Amino acid sequence: MCVCVCVCQMASSNIRYGEGVSREIGMDLQNLGARNVCLMTDKNLSVLPPVKAVLESLSQNGVNYKVYDDVRVEPTDTGSNNQKVTFKDAIAFSKNNSFDVFVAVGGGSVIDTCKAANLYACHPDADFLDFVNAPIGKGKPVTGALKPLIAVPTTAGTGSETTGVAIFDFEPLKAKTGIASRALRPTLGIVDPLHTLSMPERVAANSGFDVLCHALESYTALPYNQRSPCPPNPINRPAYQGSNPISDVWSRHALNVVAKFMKRAVRDPEDLEARSSMHLASVFAGIGFGNAGVHLCHGMSYPIAGNVKTHSAKGYSVDHALVPHGLSVVLTSPAVFNFTAPMCPERHLEAAEILGADVRRVKREDAGGVLADTLRQFLLELQVEDGLGALGYSKDDIPALVRGTIPQERVTKLSPREHTEEDLSELFAASMKLY
Amino acid sequence: MCVCVCVCQMASSNIRYGEGVSREIGMDLQNLGARNVCLMTDKNLSVLPPVKAVLESLSQNGVNYKVYDDVRVEPTDTGSNNQKVTFKDAIAFSKNNSFDVFVAVGGGSVIDTCKAANLYACHPDADFLDFVNAPIGKGKPVTGALKPLIAVPTTAGTGSETTGVAIFDFEPLKAKTGIASRALRPTLGIVDPLHTLSMPERVAANSGFDVLCHALESYTALPYNQRSPCPPNPINRPAYQGSNPISDVWSRHALNVVAKFMKRAVRDPEDLEARSSMHLASVFAGIGFGNAGVHLCHGMSYPIAGNVKTHSAKGYSVDHALVPHGLSVVLTSPAVFNFTAPMCPERHLEAAEILGADVRRVKREDAGGVLADTLRQFLLELQVEDGLGALGYSKDDIPALVRGTIPQERVTKLSPREHTEEDLSELFAASMKLY
Repeated sequence: MCVCVCVCQMASSNIRYGEGVSREIGMDLQNLGARNVCLMTDKNLSVLPPVKAVLESLSQNGVNYKVYDDVRVEPTDTGSNNQKVTFKDAIAFSKNNSFDVFVAVGGGSVIDTCKAANLYACHPDADFLDFVNAPIGKGKPVTGALKPLIAVPTTAGTGSETTGVAIFDFEPLKAKTGIASRALRPTLGIVDPLHTLSMPERVAANSGFDVLCHALESYTALPYNQRSPCPPNPINRPAYQGSNPISDVWSRHALNVVAKFMKRAVRDPEDLEARSSMHLASVFAGIGFGNAGVHLCHGMSYPIAGNVKTHSAKGYSVDHALVPHGLSVVLTSPAVFNFTAPMCPERHLEAAEILGADVRRVKREDAGGVLADTLRQFLLELQVEDGLGALGYSKDDIPALVRGTIPQERVTKLSPREHTEEDLSELFAASMKLY
Repeated sequence: MCVCVCVCQMASSNIRYGEGVSREIGMDLQNLGARNVCLMTDKNLSVLPPVKAVLESLSQNGVNYKVYDDVRVEPTDTGSNNQKVTFKDAIAFSKNNSFDVFVAVGGGSVIDTCKAANLYACHPDADFLDFVNAPIGKGKPVTGALKPLIAVPTTAGTGSETTGVAIFDFEPLKAKTGIASRALRPTLGIVDPLHTLSMPERVAANSGFDVLCHALESYTALPYNQRSPCPPNPINRPAYQGSNPISDVWSRHALNVVAKFMKRAVRDPEDLEARSSMHLASVFAGIGFGNAGVHLCHGMSYPIAGNVKTHSAKGYSVDHALVPHGLSVVLTSPAVFNFTAPMCPERHLEAAEILGADVRRVKREDAGGVLADTLRQFLLELQVEDGLGALGYSKDDIPALVRGTIPQERVTKLSPREHTEEDLSELFAASMKLY
């Protein structure tokens, strides 16, 4: 246990928010002295209003740029399975072009790919696994300076515009992993609520589930003063530090916004108030989890997404099997919070109440069950697939899912409750069917 | 009105929080590669535990440093009135020593003096008024890089560890003014709740009133999308941008903490939970007002502090007449919020409710009166002087107080309600006696 000093560190995030604010980006790039800008996005987005608004602003301000629009939804490291388009491809593009500023317009996949492209273009001699989280990679600290990166999120979920994390599918393991360093944090996040009007209904739902789980997991994460070991030097402090009085403000506020606006935002793409509120909620939850961390829902989601065989995601225009990130995260949430509730029942009850449950007569020992029921009802009303079974998983897949969770220690160690492989098996089993 | 884009920008603040966390500062300085550190504090603090803890950490880590402990409480620009110790003196000390990192251990006066010393040591050819806010100074933008500054606040009020603002008494005008630039923002704020145990009772009260007013003013400031003129380029965006959905989270949360803990923190210096909570509340309110801005209480406070004749502040060990900043701010608050309430009665009512008022049957048009009464009761319970009259002011002083408020346009323009010189006169008159 961290006994010498109890510490949380609030990391910085520069966020600009406003309707139409992405039209200023050309001036921002001029102010940065940009001479050769890398604009990353994906093929679907490249013809939609958010990218158009950014491109117009670049042209109006005479900014020189190249577009990379090959980003894959839920990116992989190398791109086997005939997927050319990957982290490594984006990195090669960046290395070949000597960019001085990066701009990412898209969801978490685009922003994370752009972070990695910036990182490795600035460290041309590094091996890809050098910066990848241990134990999968070497987890080396980033010491050199990166180029400025402006993130323009077009989904309301990832929070990647506020964090120093980049996530990808590591194909040898069939699980997601990532790179985590404060150095990856974008210089500026431009949060333009008009952009979220382009989101298809299921993208709005799944990205909203990511916000929901960021908020719930960071609010229930192991408290910052129970984390161990205590780093001997503050430079070794991890990005994810456990729940703390600063992240709590963000996590709780984000949860309130999700409770109030998410259903409206999913059902009516024209509801600007609801979509705009969810867009900001993704920022709030991003700052919260970017400091506190996430735990089991995220740790278990990576093999759920990575082992996908045939599931075709409703509402996503992609040519490969896909479990969208937010969906892979939220399906285990009823089982996970039922499991973690005994460690901090008050916080689980408070979350259930914010999400609409009447908790006045609920006993502390029933907190987990009440939050689980509240979450199941929430998912049912948003027509979410009925558990992992509906994605094509059966109990035969559980060993592989557990195997893919074990290396996610970077996040799973923030679970407020210690857990064995048997516990993980039971959590996957309990998530096969929800309703 | 700002019609083209409605924007708020959340500026970054790096905050580390924890009991005993200031003992890490020597390692932070080593990590920054510091070779010659300037440690600023004041004479009273220099023998108290916060400075001792920092000095021990510096010695243990072999950090080379020089101490400047001549900072004056409520600093002036030049130090007339036989006050040698001023912004300019601290700047000269810094220029003569080629420091590569600055450390400020103290309240707002120390941190603000240190910000100015860093700024002008890095711009040795600049005239002092170059960076001072217009219309008093030239308000030039800061273009060069500053040295890293680590702020270790020992009061729970200023929020200066989170902001890019440095305030001082401008003696020719007998009013405070300051320098505002994002470049001044500390690299890191080290918030160690053990430090606030050194605060005398009245220092705890007055610095807490600063938190209260930061929260109330930023929550009721002109909304970000009603600000004018709209800056043509984002680089010209002011530090203070009006209330907005991001600053609102901080302001409201800080107000809740003040309502819950401030009285306990003032009355019992050993109440670590209460003092620690107020310490964090000052950070929260600092991030809130550092983005949204403050308005009339702060604008009017500067001549109240600057025109002081004989008032000797209870609990402050200083050799000059003094109205502590928090006191100068809070005394006008009942009159100010009674005046501003018609522009956003819901927010004024919400604030009154957070501070303990029963607002269930209150009409919107009575919001100002209810918040004013609630504030008067709050001040009475904390034994605050009975208005400006108790500080030695009479109605004859009102023209000078108004004259000192006029140039504070940087903040007063964020008032949600437009105001004439007559309005200001009436607000000062209504603040002469509170109970």
